[in-house]
Parts: sequence; structure tokens; C-alpha cells
Amino acid sequence: MVATGLFITLEGGEGVGKSTAAAGLAATLRAEGREVVLTREPGGTKGAEAIRGLLMNQEIPLDPLAQTMLHFAARADHVAHSIRPALERGAIVVCDRFYDSTMAYQAYGQGVALEHIRALIALVGLKPDITFLLEASEFEVKARLAARASGSDRYEEMDEAFFTRVREGFLAIAEAEPTRFIRIDASHAPEQVVALLRQALRNKAGC
Amino acid sequence: MVATGLFITLEGGEGVGKSTAAAGLAATLRAEGREVVLTREPGGTKGAEAIRGLLMNQEIPLDPLAQTMLHFAARADHVAHSIRPALERGAIVVCDRFYDSTMAYQAYGQGVALEHIRALIALVGLKPDITFLLEASEFEVKARLAARASGSDRYEEMDEAFFTRVREGFLAIAEAEPTRFIRIDASHAPEQVVALLRQALRNKAGC
Repeated sequence: MVATGLFITLEGGEGVGKSTAAAGLAATLRAEGREVVLTREPGGTKGAEAIRGLLMNQEIPLDPLAQTMLHFAARADHVAHSIRPALERGAIVVCDRFYDSTMAYQAYGQGVALEHIRALIALVGLKPDITFLLEASEFEVKARLAARASGSDRYEEMDEAFFTRVREGFLAIAEAEPTRFIRIDASHAPEQVVALLRQALRNKAGC
Repeated sequence: MVATGLFITLEGGEGVGKSTAAAGLAATLRAEGREVVLTREPGGTKGAEAIRGLLMNQEIPLDPLAQTMLHFAARADHVAHSIRPALERGAIVVCDRFYDSTMAYQAYGQGVALEHIRALIALVGLKPDITFLLEASEFEVKARLAARASGSDRYEEMDEAFFTRVREGFLAIAEAEPTRFIRIDASHAPEQVVALLRQALRNKAGC
């Protein structure tokens, strides 16, 4: 069956406000009467959440290629059991992180070959219709991360240079696909960011 | 660094005697003074064993492509943290199952595309030097499985048609790579099977 819904992903580094923005966009679209599936990666299904638990557990050492494949294993389950069925019944799927995050974190951040990630993307075989890249200044991101109760999973503990590579990675990915990506200034208040997303969606997808 | 050791894998369906034969071959080679790393898949490192736990847990539904990627995630960690370092220091690695099992179970058994598995094999980038395909009659396999205390992981619970596809898959894989594969009649007593493996190794690798 052909996917007839709309697949929207939100991307960006830690603390940039993706989860809040995704929830706000989903609520806005639901208030307009749309069926919205709000989900996140890694996770979104029972199997993928179990894999997420493994990925976030710093006690378990994992080679970067193994981490990459775990992200894609979770994604394969998420796509098969949640995203694709939702798109096939015409829903809007709003997903907090998707394969661009694996490209930014594992390829640009951890040094896994770009072509390895591309091969895995091809295996999963589903591309977002629209991807919002949320951007905020380092100052704002640091303030948001400091305000979080706890923040120590495998990736949040990495050093500054890692996050610089990830940020530059997201920019390179967005620049390579200007028709799919929309860059959003996420330094505004949450409700303003949601309004920006809603307007951009209207301009881009006419809905 | 170039791998200078010898990478031996044992393949075949459930109950054909792979684990016993692998342990016997490792013991024989050690008695001759070789350094042998005896290992198994999925598993072999802390990370890969954690992934194995997830794969074997029938409570967690997982799409076949997700299962495939989990097997390769475990494999990537196993290769990076155990097999490759062992080969680089000149050891003989004896591994109970490797990527041919994923090809047989996930592609031939569960219907994942052969080219998906081939793409994942290319990502891991390590090929066994010698692969023994252990074969026994259905009658013997059933007797061995019945003698096991418990046997209910995700794959052992599959139906007869599944195991027929897996067995035919192993044969097709072995026939496609006659220089790597050696077929072994595993219906003999364990010590005889080990003697067959030892002799075949001498004939094939001259060691």
C-alpha cells in the first residue's frame, strides 16, 4: 500500500527543544482535527524501546558500528509496526529524531563511515516528507541542559568537540537536502517555535 | 593491521551438535599448543550478549528486519571487540554461528531480502576463512532437541516449514561458496565429528 499520510521529523542537538516542539506541533494539528501519531527515536514501539534501553545504558560498552546498527534495528521495528501503518491510514506522523540523528551522531560525531549509514537508510526504505532542523545558540542550549534534572545517557556525556561535530553534521545534512529540510530558529519561546513550525508546514506541504 | 590468525565458523540448524563440536575442536587445537578463542553468536562480548538477551526474549515482538539488524549489531561488536583483535594476534577463532546463520534464518527462514543481508555482511567486512556446515538427519536432530532440558527461544518455537527453509538455505549458501564451506556429517558420535573437523582443517588450511 502507498503511504498517503505525512511524515514529519524534528532534528537537532541535545537541549534544542525538539520534544517540546514536537508535542506542541502534534497538539496544534490535533486541535485542527487531524489524526497525529507523536513518536520519538530511538523508541516508539515495545521492541524499539527495549533497544533504546540498551543504547542508553552506559554500563554496556558498544562499538560505534554496533550502536549504529542498534539505532537502525530500533528504527526498522518502529517503521514496520508504527510509522508505516499510520502513514498508510493517512495520519500525520511527528517524530522526534529519525535517521538524520544517526547520521549526525554516529557518522559526524563518532566517525562511522557516511556510506555505512546511507546503506542502512536504504534498507529501512522510508524517507521523511519534511524535516525541521531546530537550531539555538550554544548559550541557550547549555542553559536548557543545565535546567534538566538528570542528563547522563551514552551521548549526553560526550565532550564539547563531539557536539560541535554533531552540530556541523546536522548543518551539512540539511544543506545537502534543501527540499526536505526546513531550518527553524528554536531560540524563541516554545509557543513561538510551534507557530513557526505550523506556518512552515503550511507553506511547504500546503496543509 | 592485517588479520593473521584463522577464522573458523560452524553452521547448521538447531540440535545438529555445533556447540559440542566447536568446544571439541577448540580443545583439540589447544592441546596442540594453539591459542584458540572459542566463541558463539549472537553473543561473545558484553554488548553482544545483552543484544542476544533481547533477541531471545519472546515477550518482545520484533520485525524480521529489526531482528536481522540486531544480529548484525551484536556481530559488529563481537568482531570489533573480540574476533578481530584475536585474529590480529594470530589466534585461531572458533565461532559457533556467524553471518551464514542470519542468512539462513532471517532471509531463507523469515523472508528478509537476501540483498539486505548481503549489504549488512559488507558493513561488518569480515569473512570466515573456513566454515563447517554440520548436517544430521531430521530423526537425529529431533532426538537431540527432545533431550534438551528446555528449548524455547524466539527461533526454537518456529514451525517445521520454517526449519525446512533454514536447512535448504544453509545448503544453498554452502553450494554458492564451495571454497569456504566444508560439509560435515554430524550424525557420528561427538568425538568422531571433532576428528572429522580436525582432519578437514588440516586438508584445507594445512594446519
